[in-house]
Amino acid sequence: MARVVVDVMPKPEILDPQGKAVLGALPRLGFSGVTDVRQGKRFELEIDGEITDEVLAEIDKVAESLLSNPVIENYEVHVEDRSVAEIAAEAGR
Amino acid sequence: MARVVVDVMPKPEILDPQGKAVLGALPRLGFSGVTDVRQGKRFELEIDGEITDEVLAEIDKVAESLLSNPVIENYEVHVEDRSVAEIAAEAGR
Repeated sequence: MARVVVDVMPKPEILDPQGKAVLGALPRLGFSGVTDVRQGKRFELEIDGEITDEVLAEIDKVAESLLSNPVIENYEVHVEDRSVAEIAAEAGR
Repeated sequence: MARVVVDVMPKPEILDPQGKAVLGALPRLGFSGVTDVRQGKRFELEIDGEITDEVLAEIDKVAESLLSNPVIENYEVHVEDRSVAEIAAEAGR
């Protein structure tokens, strides 16, 4: 099964209260060295069949029209072999 | 400026109503070929200074204790050169 990942992040000029909340919490929890945090969304799409240029062009349209709001968000589409769950399982988490 | 990305996804055995809503919307919008969608979170952290093993170990603790809920979510930490905003800008979006 092929997997395509769509990452959606707030544009740099858009305020990101969730990211700011995380940034503010870090020093209180004893973590230093992080100067900025932005929070966005990650979509893992399982694709039936091979990933061709046509499939990727279609996913690009899905990302633009359904998964992101182009007024306030940027998106990026890429193929990824392993899901976060598989990576976590390999790391024994 | 160095950048570390933390991806957080619902565990496979956890229901994901947001992902299911996207999956259900795709055929209505004329997109076929997607068999499953999972929705999670993506955090982009800007790090002051070099990314050493100690820094990554600290970010791992942040991911486990603050950015994810280990009962229902898996996480993954990796270094990434370019943000989604930079990739989108290069693609002219």
